[in-house]
Amino acid sequence: MAVAWSEKASSMEALSLSPPMSPPVILTQDELKKIAAYKAVEFVESGMVLGLGTGSTAKHAVDRIGELLRQGKLTNIIGIPTSKKTQEQAISLGIPLSDLDSHPTIDMAIDGADEVDPHLNLVKGRGGSLLREKMVEGACKKFVCIVDESKLVKYLGGSGLAMPVEVVPFCWKFTAKKLQNLFRDSGCVAKLRNDCKGEPFVTDNGNYIVDLYLKKDIGDLQVASDAILRIAGVVEHGMFLAMATTVIVAAGNGFFFFWHLLIDDKSCLVFSSFVIFVLDTNLREEKI
Amino acid sequence: MAVAWSEKASSMEALSLSPPMSPPVILTQDELKKIAAYKAVEFVESGMVLGLGTGSTAKHAVDRIGELLRQGKLTNIIGIPTSKKTQEQAISLGIPLSDLDSHPTIDMAIDGADEVDPHLNLVKGRGGSLLREKMVEGACKKFVCIVDESKLVKYLGGSGLAMPVEVVPFCWKFTAKKLQNLFRDSGCVAKLRNDCKGEPFVTDNGNYIVDLYLKKDIGDLQVASDAILRIAGVVEHGMFLAMATTVIVAAGNGFFFFWHLLIDDKSCLVFSSFVIFVLDTNLREEKI
Repeated sequence: MAVAWSEKASSMEALSLSPPMSPPVILTQDELKKIAAYKAVEFVESGMVLGLGTGSTAKHAVDRIGELLRQGKLTNIIGIPTSKKTQEQAISLGIPLSDLDSHPTIDMAIDGADEVDPHLNLVKGRGGSLLREKMVEGACKKFVCIVDESKLVKYLGGSGLAMPVEVVPFCWKFTAKKLQNLFRDSGCVAKLRNDCKGEPFVTDNGNYIVDLYLKKDIGDLQVASDAILRIAGVVEHGMFLAMATTVIVAAGNGFFFFWHLLIDDKSCLVFSSFVIFVLDTNLREEKI
Repeated sequence: MAVAWSEKASSMEALSLSPPMSPPVILTQDELKKIAAYKAVEFVESGMVLGLGTGSTAKHAVDRIGELLRQGKLTNIIGIPTSKKTQEQAISLGIPLSDLDSHPTIDMAIDGADEVDPHLNLVKGRGGSLLREKMVEGACKKFVCIVDESKLVKYLGGSGLAMPVEVVPFCWKFTAKKLQNLFRDSGCVAKLRNDCKGEPFVTDNGNYIVDLYLKKDIGDLQVASDAILRIAGVVEHGMFLAMATTVIVAAGNGFFFFWHLLIDDKSCLVFSSFVIFVLDTNLREEKI
C-alpha cells in the first residue's frame, strides 16, 4: 500500500515548501518499514545485548540482525525477544537468545510502534505483545523505535485506531466498562479484541486485550497511565511514555515537512527532505 | 492458638487502665475470627448482592451466610465469590452465585485482611486471592473487613509478614528485583511465594506472587501503590487503600486499650473493653 503522505502531512502541520527535485519514488508501507529497520540496525554493535521487538516493522530488524550475524559483520550478540513469535523468528535465524532474568540490563532495543506523538511517547501493542515489550524496553539503555510515517500522530489515540490494554480474563467486561468510563469525556469505546476465529485474543501471558478507541485527546498521559493501572484487573497498557530514546521515521519521498517536536518543554522543528529522519531525545537531527 | 494480646497491645500503644472485672476467658485466634465474622453477617439483609471473601476468617462468614439461608432467616442473596476456593465453598452451601460482569455493583462484601492500619488501609493477599478480592471489593457500596486483633498494625508491612504482589510469571526474577529496589530504603526483601511442594504458587489468574518483607514504613501509600503498579510485570498488589468502610476487630477479652484512628486527617480514640469493636469510616464506634 502506498503511503497517503499528503493526507498525513496535512494532519501533521506539514508544509510543502517546494516541488521535489526529481519525480517522487512511491514506496510501499512495507518498504518504508524495512528502510527504518535497516537504519536502526546500523546502531547495533558486536557484543551488545539486544531487545528484539515484535511486529511487521521489527521483524525486518530481526531479519537484518540475523543476516549480519551470518555474514560475520556482527558477532557476540545476545537477543532478548519480546514475544514468543519473535523468539521463534530469532531461533530460526540462529540469533543467540537470553532473557531479562539473566540479562537485566539491555544495551539497546529495536521495536516498532503503532503511534508516535511529538514527545516521542508511543502506543504499542496492536500486535498483542505490549507487556513483554514494555518489560524489555524499560530495561534498555537505548530504545530505538522504528516506524513508517503513517504512525505519526498529534496525540496518543489520535489515529482513531486501538489503544490496547492487557487485562486478566476474570470479569473482563467489568474491567472494560471501567476503562470506558475512565475516558468517557474523550468519547472512549472499549472493545474486547478477538482473534481470526472470533474467539478472545489471548496474549503470551494468558490475558485478554481490551482495545480503547478515542475520539479526543485524553490529556495528561502520566495521569491517564496511573488511572488505568489503578483499575484492578488491568495488567498493563500500551502507552509507552518517555521510553523511546530515538525514533526513526521512514517517510515517503518527495515532500518537505516540518514537525513540532516537544521534549522537556522545549520546542524545535524537525526537517527532512529525505526518506529517513531520526528523532532523538537529545534533540539531535540526522539527515540521511 | 491463644492471642498474644499483651504483646500486641504494647505495640499498639495500648493502655491497661484497670484489671478485668472477671477472670479473662482465653479465646483462640480462630474463635476471635469467628466472632468477627458472625458480627459482620449481622449487617447482611435479604435481597443483597454480597461479595464473599477468601481466607480463614471470611470462611466463617460464608459458612454463617449459608446457615442463615438454610434456616430461611436470609433469602434472595446473590454471592460474588473472590476466589475459586470460595466459589466451591459457596456452592457446597447452596449460596446462589453470580459474577461482576452480571452484577457490577455489589451491596456489601465481607472479607478478612492480613493487616489493618489506623487509617483502615489493609494488606490482603497472603491467601493468594488479592486480585479478585480487589476487583470485587472495589465494586462494593460497603466493604466490611473482619479481623482478629493480631492483624492491627501501626503501618502497612509493620507485622514483618508478607506484603504480596501478583506478577506475571514471565521474567518474575526481574520484576522481583525491581520491587525490592523500589523499597530499598525500607529494607525490603522480595521473595517468590512457593506452594507446599516447593513449586511457585500459582494464583487463580495463572500468575505468581512475590512477597515483600519490609523493615520500615514505606511512606505515602498512594505514591508507593502507583510506583508498584508502574512496574511492567506487576499485575496487582495487596495494599487495599481507602477501600474498607468498616473494620470489625475481635479482640481478646479482659483488657482496655486505646487505638489511634486517623481518617481524613482527623484523630480519634477508639475504646473498647469488650470482645468486639467496630471501626467505621464515618468514625462511628459501636460497643457490643
